[in-house]
Amino acid sequence: MLRWNEVSADAQAAALMRPAVSASVKVKEICQTIMANVKEQGDDALLAMAKEFDNRPTPRLLVPIEEINNAVQQLSPELRYAIDTAYANVKRFHQAQLPKDIKLTTQPGVLCELKYQAIEAVGLYVPGGSAALPSSVIMQGVLAQLSGAKTIVLATPVQGNAQINSAILYAAKLCGITTIVESGGAGAIAAMAYGTGSVPKVNKIFGPGNSFVTMAKQLVAQTIPGMAIDMPAGPSEVLVIADERANPEFIAADLLSQAEHGADSQVILLSNNELTIERTQHAIERQLAKLSRQDIAAKALANSSLILVDSIDQAFDVSAQYGPEHLILQLADANPYLGKVKNAGSVFVGDYTPESAGDYASGTNHVLPTYGYSATYSSLNLLDFFRTYTVQTITQNGLKNLSKAILPLADAEGLDAHANAVKVRLEAMNRGNE
Amino acid sequence: MLRWNEVSADAQAAALMRPAVSASVKVKEICQTIMANVKEQGDDALLAMAKEFDNRPTPRLLVPIEEINNAVQQLSPELRYAIDTAYANVKRFHQAQLPKDIKLTTQPGVLCELKYQAIEAVGLYVPGGSAALPSSVIMQGVLAQLSGAKTIVLATPVQGNAQINSAILYAAKLCGITTIVESGGAGAIAAMAYGTGSVPKVNKIFGPGNSFVTMAKQLVAQTIPGMAIDMPAGPSEVLVIADERANPEFIAADLLSQAEHGADSQVILLSNNELTIERTQHAIERQLAKLSRQDIAAKALANSSLILVDSIDQAFDVSAQYGPEHLILQLADANPYLGKVKNAGSVFVGDYTPESAGDYASGTNHVLPTYGYSATYSSLNLLDFFRTYTVQTITQNGLKNLSKAILPLADAEGLDAHANAVKVRLEAMNRGNE
Repeated sequence: MLRWNEVSADAQAAALMRPAVSASVKVKEICQTIMANVKEQGDDALLAMAKEFDNRPTPRLLVPIEEINNAVQQLSPELRYAIDTAYANVKRFHQAQLPKDIKLTTQPGVLCELKYQAIEAVGLYVPGGSAALPSSVIMQGVLAQLSGAKTIVLATPVQGNAQINSAILYAAKLCGITTIVESGGAGAIAAMAYGTGSVPKVNKIFGPGNSFVTMAKQLVAQTIPGMAIDMPAGPSEVLVIADERANPEFIAADLLSQAEHGADSQVILLSNNELTIERTQHAIERQLAKLSRQDIAAKALANSSLILVDSIDQAFDVSAQYGPEHLILQLADANPYLGKVKNAGSVFVGDYTPESAGDYASGTNHVLPTYGYSATYSSLNLLDFFRTYTVQTITQNGLKNLSKAILPLADAEGLDAHANAVKVRLEAMNRGNE
Repeated sequence: MLRWNEVSADAQAAALMRPAVSASVKVKEICQTIMANVKEQGDDALLAMAKEFDNRPTPRLLVPIEEINNAVQQLSPELRYAIDTAYANVKRFHQAQLPKDIKLTTQPGVLCELKYQAIEAVGLYVPGGSAALPSSVIMQGVLAQLSGAKTIVLATPVQGNAQINSAILYAAKLCGITTIVESGGAGAIAAMAYGTGSVPKVNKIFGPGNSFVTMAKQLVAQTIPGMAIDMPAGPSEVLVIADERANPEFIAADLLSQAEHGADSQVILLSNNELTIERTQHAIERQLAKLSRQDIAAKALANSSLILVDSIDQAFDVSAQYGPEHLILQLADANPYLGKVKNAGSVFVGDYTPESAGDYASGTNHVLPTYGYSATYSSLNLLDFFRTYTVQTITQNGLKNLSKAILPLADAEGLDAHANAVKVRLEAMNRGNE
């Protein structure tokens, strides 16, 4: 337990320090080689990599549509209900985010519009295709579907003789995805970025992945004009703010549900009550012993901090400084504090709102900014699948009036031709009026 | 003149090819050195660079507030009116973009919210501080002001004994900007990214600039966690689609107003009428001879294409393929075609809507995606100064129902602790009901 007000600023900063994430030069070089191969040899490169890296004896690139359609038959009724419910809630919440065009006359005769255009072709990456990670499909696929993107490609890796998990295929089907590529890592990213014989070229690539996927996404965004990616990805993290009446079992369970994600996950508890922190420590020990991923969770806990603060107000200041991906508020009444929330990816309010609700099924998106990016980056939302552009339409009289603003500015900036584009039109109007 | 349907696909692609833009390794190394200096030595590094690179005998970093307040006295009434009008129109159009939070119950007891948070500290870069470029201040500053950002820093370079132009200072004052840094290039970007004694650290940096500014922006975004930048910057471009009744003088003036921006600008004309193209060529020659920046414009024209297409429909297809920053439609009736607009930054509709209207004063933003980025990137808009995050609040009954979606998904993904965070709560509810 760290007593926030009794340690130096350096010790405070150290407690909020994230494990360093540095992509090795080697990862970059491997990605560049893979990207060059895929760019030149297309499908052949993907097939060769499937044999070499994924041990696929007879690799194929695209999942036949019947397999996608029939996947539902492999699911238990409970899992099917869960996927259907998650899909419906996520769809409902993101449908409410559908953007509306704006049309406004800024001054007489000058009409300005802001319009939304769906990004035409999007690529969705889902890690670990043979494991069941349907939530990752839903959190990306629903948005692509709602945007009306013309082309949606989903890529996921498959090893050995395994097949893509039925839960993934069923979730993809719900999202209207028919192009599913059995390929992973930097090769899959390159295939979607450049296009191959089988894989359509996309404009923007979404989704989490290992260091090769992350690096390949960065490289295609940096080197291919017009190519975009969703957001920088880092290890997952949660910060819990709990008062003296919070249930230590709930706090411990929330911290552990984050810690089991990966050894590099980070969990932080801030409380104004020493006993709450002590009891949470005991609850963590009890619960950890029963987890199947206890080794991973234990490693993550080693990077983590339980911090005693003076007040709940101070906890919100510390949280804003850290900028957590997930922020859980186990407070008697969180309402007075909600205005103090800053730099969080997604907030979970009250004793009965665990992070796993948002991870799977509440309706919010689980793709969130990590590693301090929550000061500037958004939670994944429907607008990430759109771009905006503007339109202006000016009448003759509108231009006549507006010329009094344009001409002095063009003159001041020494741009004759900018002024001339207005002047030739004013002259034409004058000739027309003669 | 290129006859689109009479040349090979390669020749078509070549006609739409943008001049290559490659940042040299040297530019990158210089930026890295400058960034390291500013990070370590702060203000001292900025002052040393002002002496060395900008020939400032007695450099200062911040403009005193009285100078900002008094700048209006140096302006002609015409220029003041122009700045006031541009400010008002840009403000009106961007105010209409203020986002609204979303609140939605996705299923009983499960409340989901999407909330907007202004990015707290933003940095605005304006090139050429001693030249009058007030439009660049307005196009960034109005948005920062409307967002309610707590900290707004404007940086602009000044050479020798010159002062920051009064038009810039006055535009900044209108936008409520009080922190103006007399510093340019990679040093200014580093100062805003790291913070110095005089320059506040910001979260996101906006604005155009030369290759050093562009490179420094990329480097700070890549290396400082949480740091963001507006969009990749490239040379400016316009594409005009004109029918047989379009006025060649107008077309020529629009092409030249783009060409005068820089030798690397690109201008393209698409018309279905050979005579229109020929007459435009003559008009370009006549108008070019009278321009003060004719050397620059002539160089840009050398990279450019006048293309004869079969139909206006085909022109829109070619335009979508190119993805122009500015798209001008000089058509008898553009309305039937507006649905075909794709991958454009800003669209100018009709004979009396020159690009210079949008560059300065119509109300739309002149910071636009270039170099093909218009397939994925937005025109600068108010949301670029905000981020979104989500909030969920779940009741006991809400969680009970939602658990039927969460638990099978957590089980399928093998994440015990995720399931346990729900189970400990269900158990507590059951105990409470006993």
